[in-house]
Amino acid sequence: MTAPAFSRRAARLSATLPAAPPADAIPFDSGHAFPGVLPDLAEAARVALTTYRAETLQYAVRPGLPEMREFIAGYMRSDGIDVSSEQILIVNGAKHGLDLLCQLLLDEGDAIVVTAPMYFTAIPIFRNFGAEFIEIGQDDEGVSVDALRDSLQRRATAGEPPPKFIYNVPDFHNPSGVTMSRRRRESLVRLASEHRIPVIEDSPYRRIRFDGGAEPALKALDPHNVYAVGTFSKLVAPGLRVGWIAAPKEIVARLIQLKSDGGSCPLTQRIILEFCRGEGLQQHIDKVQRVYREHRDRMVAALRRELPQVGLTIPDGGYYVWLRFPEGVDTDELARRALTAGVSILPGSKFFSGTGSGAPRNYARLAFSHASPEEIDRGVSVIARLVG
Amino acid sequence: MTAPAFSRRAARLSATLPAAPPADAIPFDSGHAFPGVLPDLAEAARVALTTYRAETLQYAVRPGLPEMREFIAGYMRSDGIDVSSEQILIVNGAKHGLDLLCQLLLDEGDAIVVTAPMYFTAIPIFRNFGAEFIEIGQDDEGVSVDALRDSLQRRATAGEPPPKFIYNVPDFHNPSGVTMSRRRRESLVRLASEHRIPVIEDSPYRRIRFDGGAEPALKALDPHNVYAVGTFSKLVAPGLRVGWIAAPKEIVARLIQLKSDGGSCPLTQRIILEFCRGEGLQQHIDKVQRVYREHRDRMVAALRRELPQVGLTIPDGGYYVWLRFPEGVDTDELARRALTAGVSILPGSKFFSGTGSGAPRNYARLAFSHASPEEIDRGVSVIARLVG
Repeated sequence: MTAPAFSRRAARLSATLPAAPPADAIPFDSGHAFPGVLPDLAEAARVALTTYRAETLQYAVRPGLPEMREFIAGYMRSDGIDVSSEQILIVNGAKHGLDLLCQLLLDEGDAIVVTAPMYFTAIPIFRNFGAEFIEIGQDDEGVSVDALRDSLQRRATAGEPPPKFIYNVPDFHNPSGVTMSRRRRESLVRLASEHRIPVIEDSPYRRIRFDGGAEPALKALDPHNVYAVGTFSKLVAPGLRVGWIAAPKEIVARLIQLKSDGGSCPLTQRIILEFCRGEGLQQHIDKVQRVYREHRDRMVAALRRELPQVGLTIPDGGYYVWLRFPEGVDTDELARRALTAGVSILPGSKFFSGTGSGAPRNYARLAFSHASPEEIDRGVSVIARLVG
Repeated sequence: MTAPAFSRRAARLSATLPAAPPADAIPFDSGHAFPGVLPDLAEAARVALTTYRAETLQYAVRPGLPEMREFIAGYMRSDGIDVSSEQILIVNGAKHGLDLLCQLLLDEGDAIVVTAPMYFTAIPIFRNFGAEFIEIGQDDEGVSVDALRDSLQRRATAGEPPPKFIYNVPDFHNPSGVTMSRRRRESLVRLASEHRIPVIEDSPYRRIRFDGGAEPALKALDPHNVYAVGTFSKLVAPGLRVGWIAAPKEIVARLIQLKSDGGSCPLTQRIILEFCRGEGLQQHIDKVQRVYREHRDRMVAALRRELPQVGLTIPDGGYYVWLRFPEGVDTDELARRALTAGVSILPGSKFFSGTGSGAPRNYARLAFSHASPEEIDRGVSVIARLVG
């Protein structure tokens, strides 16, 4: 049997997939929703498939349903972002949005700016495009703009081309949980604009806030140079696969041509529109915030009780806590042993793009979203027993 | 305002989109379904969103729902194709499948084999990857394998690398309407296998057959070297955006990693599974065949009555007829005038990738799927009046 000649992109990948954790493991690894907050969409679907049948079962127009684009633009304007419906492109989830932005901006070998650690699912997407990762560290105000400035300066001095974009998760950063301060946001967008490097703002958890007030979105501070990627996965349900990109109109026009996929699914778009009508979305978000705040509090309490030696930043929102175990704890090994003991966690090593200095081995990300409160207690106990 | 530095791929595109035809034009341009055959999916959606809520609203497993992969494998086996569920990857429609196969196989400048004319929507997808098109003509048995053999021979002699894949629509070819003969299919897969060039078989209309029996699928003749792209768009409804790739398991493993999109929508997959249960799919296909046979017959009769000077192949299935106007008729100009007169058609020039010898100007594709029988009569009359 002969394999065909693969592209360079495909040749970089291994032909074997990592095994999925067993279905009965306590799921501290996953960004799934808690089953108790999954909304009832049956009535929205009925309307979508009767009243709107001729729309929802035909090909959609390529940029997305006009009402959906208008809804999202209004939703973002209510968050202080100056954006019109023509600046919105509907995509099949935020990861698809990231992929399209890479198509728009990246050639093989181009540099991009990421944080260390960073959202681990974005790593293979960027790597598929042959990106060179420039890893910048964070403190409790977010990504270090001073370190980024130095890095850009060094590249310029060395005659290297500037990075093609700056990727950031400014709210409840995944995995670190840090929310970028207003001052830091202002410095970041200013530096990016001076260097004419677009910023990709990925903020799926922005409305899943438990404490305090929101800082302005990066796109609110610079609507032209920041491209925002959004999703209904965390607001309504992951399975719907509806997300968006908000970017200047001429960027959206190019993205539409790169998308060439027959239009994103009009049925799921219409189901979301029906569900979000009136107070639907806000009521649902209120419930989601309430449930996940309880989950977070439960997990933080269990960690302090059972693993007092572990450092953690309490996140003001989102799905995750980022744990710093004492030096010498190898979380890759811990994750393997935890899985055997029935708990699935993600070791910190997965969150480093790996081209900078060696990734620290003593971090882990725990999701409090998917597991039940009882599973949270039980799972943390199991980990504590393993760490000893 | 400054544009960012685009990728080479994006720089090849213009930043303006073609205008959509007005909604009240008679839609001979479109591959949409006739509204009268859109199925009632409300009950299937109710079950999907109640009984299966925990599945349909969470992230799906990356290769697609196991039941859906099993259903498609069974569906293909009933068509004589030796395939297992592990060889099926669920994607967001056939165009997404083509895009993923390009990701797997193509680097910028790689050659691919297409027909002239070819399915026009595939042209920008392949072009986005910087493909060099090798255009091969067709006769009434399908693509010319002799011409392809000569072309491969010439490239080898010139020291040029072989093409990375052969793309073909063997059933009711879009746009030419030609169904490849069995003999030609056998020669094509044999030649491809000898040269170790994978074949991409794109056959969305295969079950939309009005006359005669089916020839074996290319993949039935060579399950290893043929990668089949399938879709529910023509079988159930375009808006669902569920398609698949059938390929060897190790190819599927690589495609899954390239896909990195959070899994295709589990809700639309489950709706389709519910709809297709028992006799559901076959009953629907019977209806679709009946309706589109009437549409085809109505259009062919109108064309013979009103435009006897136009040459056409009567297609045994699918959505389209391909018209050869007398030399001297410029169908780009005709399409513009027809649109002004309220009829939207696609000029033949759109179906040539344009890197071979100059595309003929006197062809046009007319879809009989979307318009009503009355609109078919009216639209053909308008065109006849314009041609004079």
